[in-house]
Amino acid sequence: MSRKTSSVAVYCSLNMGTLVTGTAATYVEELWINTDKRYEIMCITQDVQNVIKQSGITDGIVLVNPMHITASCYVNDLESGLHHDIMNWLGKLAPFYGADGKSGEEYHHHQTGEDNGDAHLKRQLLGQQVTMAVKNGQLHLGTWEQIHYAEFDGMRNKRILVKVVGIIAQ
Amino acid sequence: MSRKTSSVAVYCSLNMGTLVTGTAATYVEELWINTDKRYEIMCITQDVQNVIKQSGITDGIVLVNPMHITASCYVNDLESGLHHDIMNWLGKLAPFYGADGKSGEEYHHHQTGEDNGDAHLKRQLLGQQVTMAVKNGQLHLGTWEQIHYAEFDGMRNKRILVKVVGIIAQ
Amino acid sequence: MSRKTSSVAVYCSLNMGTLVTGTAATYVEELWINTDKRYEIMCITQDVQNVIKQSGITDGIVLVNPMHITASCYVNDLESGLHHDIMNWLGKLAPFYGADGKSGEEYHHHQTGEDNGDAHLKRQLLGQQVTMAVKNGQLHLGTWEQIHYAEFDGMRNKRILVKVVGIIAQ
Repeated sequence: MSRKTSSVAVYCSLNMGTLVTGTAATYVEELWINTDKRYEIMCITQDVQNVIKQSGITDGIVLVNPMHITASCYVNDLESGLHHDIMNWLGKLAPFYGADGKSGEEYHHHQTGEDNGDAHLKRQLLGQQVTMAVKNGQLHLGTWEQIHYAEFDGMRNKRILVKVVGIIAQ
Repeated sequence: MSRKTSSVAVYCSLNMGTLVTGTAATYVEELWINTDKRYEIMCITQDVQNVIKQSGITDGIVLVNPMHITASCYVNDLESGLHHDIMNWLGKLAPFYGADGKSGEEYHHHQTGEDNGDAHLKRQLLGQQVTMAVKNGQLHLGTWEQIHYAEFDGMRNKRILVKVVGIIAQ
Repeated sequence: MSRKTSSVAVYCSLNMGTLVTGTAATYVEELWINTDKRYEIMCITQDVQNVIKQSGITDGIVLVNPMHITASCYVNDLESGLHHDIMNWLGKLAPFYGADGKSGEEYHHHQTGEDNGDAHLKRQLLGQQVTMAVKNGQLHLGTWEQIHYAEFDGMRNKRILVKVVGIIAQ
């Protein structure tokens, strides 16, 4: 862990950047999703890419945001072992207690009749949403970056908002 | 938890998206806030909506970012039981130790004279900031999505940055 | 913790906002970074500012996103004690187990031959990425906000994507 407290020079060339101008544009789509299980992780990279292609927007950003508060959109490895590790880890740090809860441990949220208090917390821990870059009409990703949807209260219809904001290059 | 490692088809129609073009515009406002308590959660959805309306920007995104590093802006349920659960949960995973700390547990950050080490960590755990979509001059929200400000070192003047980036539709 | 469930009036004037229009533009650069240690935190505020200046974009937002899934970009205090606290805290909540793991505790991700399961989780806990505001060609920051890069599997070449989206004021 670094003890440096001043800004560190990053080994970058400031001549490599790319400026693009054009017509300002936004595009939005709501994707519908319904998972087979209560807890499930799905890769949605290609779905997001399809929306970008459909939009015609060439450069900008794309916001990928679950429209429900018991799910996450996040970026990490597309690897089933890691998917298991993520769910296992979230289960330890934000446990499921069910509708009845446990003495001294239950979520107050369950007093409303819900049993998904853990889902509301897991979503915050894993990350609510991601914003990714768009370049030349494509997701601008690192080698291993994959966009995922993590469901913590599934088996029902839910929506993912995909909003593209940027330009149509001239 | 899914064992699928290939991209999953999301049940969406790619013909539902909406493209909007217009004049590129940005708008920024700093909201001031001063909570009654050291730890407090407030819903700011309407405040963010007011800024969007004032901006005149019709489509794009809005960044909601605390300008202080001991607070979070996040999206989740507007339900007092959940607010309690969130604060209780954060208190377990990133405990308050006070100015003196406890043997072997104190935060090194407290060597600067601060006593808010827990606040700096809680902010990261709950989520630093959110970016939400704007459509037709309104926040584009799911049914239960509400924007919140979570304060972990309050009873002083703080600011929330609201930045709208998008277009004024032609 | 607040029991209020209605929207709270924030003490803001809605006349203070600033609207800027101009030519829509985006700019992107990939910064290269290679840390001395496996775990390290670096402040990159000035590096991000340099990209913004180079872009010529005057108002908008900047996305700062690690292009690798074992690192975070986050905003918090530039203070070495806090840097220590962050790494220590992450180590407790998402421990390193090494290539061999420990009985009953190992990450399934390590079955692929990797030993960085902890890094994939730490990244989610600390926060994957940040989006910050740009005003008059400068980062629009609060007094103590500093952009950091946190590396959890370093000593190799990695990239940070800096994407500026906004306008060139007329």
